[in-house]
Amino acid sequence: MGQIKVEKNVGGIEGLAVITPTVHGDDRGYFMETYNENDMKEAGFDINFVQDNQSSSTKGVLRGLHFQKHFPQCKLVRAVRGDVFDVAVDLRSDSKTYGKWYGVELTAENKKQFLIPEGFAHGFLVLSDEAEFCYKVNDFWHPNDEGGMAWNDPEIGIKWPHVTGSYPGNADASGYALDDGTKLTLSDR
Amino acid sequence: MGQIKVEKNVGGIEGLAVITPTVHGDDRGYFMETYNENDMKEAGFDINFVQDNQSSSTKGVLRGLHFQKHFPQCKLVRAVRGDVFDVAVDLRSDSKTYGKWYGVELTAENKKQFLIPEGFAHGFLVLSDEAEFCYKVNDFWHPNDEGGMAWNDPEIGIKWPHVTGSYPGNADASGYALDDGTKLTLSDR
Ligand SMILES: Cc1cn([C@H]2C[C@H](O)[C@@H](COP(=O)(O)OP(=O)(O)O[C@H]3O[C@@H](C)[C@H](O)[C@@H](O)[C@H]3O)O2)c(=O)[nH]c1=O
Ligand SMILES: Cc1cn([C@H]2C[C@H](O)[C@@H](COP(=O)(O)OP(=O)(O)O[C@H]3O[C@@H](C)[C@H](O)[C@@H](O)[C@H]3O)O2)c(=O)[nH]c1=O
Repeated sequence: MGQIKVEKNVGGIEGLAVITPTVHGDDRGYFMETYNENDMKEAGFDINFVQDNQSSSTKGVLRGLHFQKHFPQCKLVRAVRGDVFDVAVDLRSDSKTYGKWYGVELTAENKKQFLIPEGFAHGFLVLSDEAEFCYKVNDFWHPNDEGGMAWNDPEIGIKWPHVTGSYPGNADASGYALDDGTKLTLSDR
Repeated sequence: MGQIKVEKNVGGIEGLAVITPTVHGDDRGYFMETYNENDMKEAGFDINFVQDNQSSSTKGVLRGLHFQKHFPQCKLVRAVRGDVFDVAVDLRSDSKTYGKWYGVELTAENKKQFLIPEGFAHGFLVLSDEAEFCYKVNDFWHPNDEGGMAWNDPEIGIKWPHVTGSYPGNADASGYALDDGTKLTLSDR
């Protein structure tokens, strides 16, 4: 019943994909399948998701960059409310694009989903006054296994949009420093 | 890591459950696991969800009552935005509570989830200006297998809250008549 549009290997990074579901509008509102195991399999993604998460954050909040070291998670992420700039960084040691990042704006409006395979660091910056973010993961949370890297690691060089003024916090904390609590100042869009 | 509170057999109907996740608040906003396969198994629910849906509807819209006849679906439903009154009707022929209904208010605020096993009709009424509704199902959509019953079937006698004036539409359409498009007039709450 193929109801998804799939852009594979976005940013030239193998395995990263942007998925857009079909939205069925009518006078009640709309309906969409936000996940369909068969559609995903047909698209080549045979993933066993075991946990769904939801977080809410205010404008300028940056969650990430996070990963699990020994229990890496594949993630399928999307915004259900508001707008975020979502980023994945390739940390797969055998990858031709190791250290490369890709970012995509995910909004409640564009309904895009970002599929991030195992072996990536992941984070997002909230661009709207509030954002509600939902994601599926294929392995459970292992608090003692968490790793993090600075959102502004100079070697990675992520271009976060709309960030103004000096970059606060952890500017010198490249490498494995969790950045939870980072709140950036953003320009009007 | 048990992060859910589970009320089993709500309304005295075996298998119906209301699940409330733990919400972790901090200055960024909050985080919650909206689904965790291990927590569910520990609570006695070993379900293989294969599809996630999201619909948006305006105040007074009633979606339902729906079911699939030969491919019955277990559903885990919740509101991510706004408020709905959610109802399940027991249609299991061998059930002691056949024909009995149970309703629960699901809101973005209370974050409650309603677990509806296979063999129920399901529907919900939107109480807020808009509501965004998310749910997981353990079998795919089979358009030719859909059944419906009137939201106001007199033998079922669901007490939909806040409905004022005369009940519009299908008042005489008890039995198998799909009610899509029903929009009710609601009082202020
Ligand atoms: C990630 C996670 C956190 N928690 C709890 C721990 C804390 O009390 C609270 C917030 O946890 P934090 O790790 O600070 O949330 P966070 O939103 O900063 O973490 C998330 O950031 C995303 C960018 C990553 O993709 C995710 O994998 C995760 O790391 O939620 C769970 O219960 N289960 C989980 O799976
Ligand atoms: C249910 C469903 C619909 N669709 C399409 C068909 C239509 O174009 C559009 C709207 O479909 P409808 O059946 O009118 O949506 P709806 O929101 O009225 O239907 C839903 O009501 C809930 C109360 C039930 O729990 C669900 O099982 C389902 O029946 O979405 C899918 O693509 N996949 C699906 O799984």
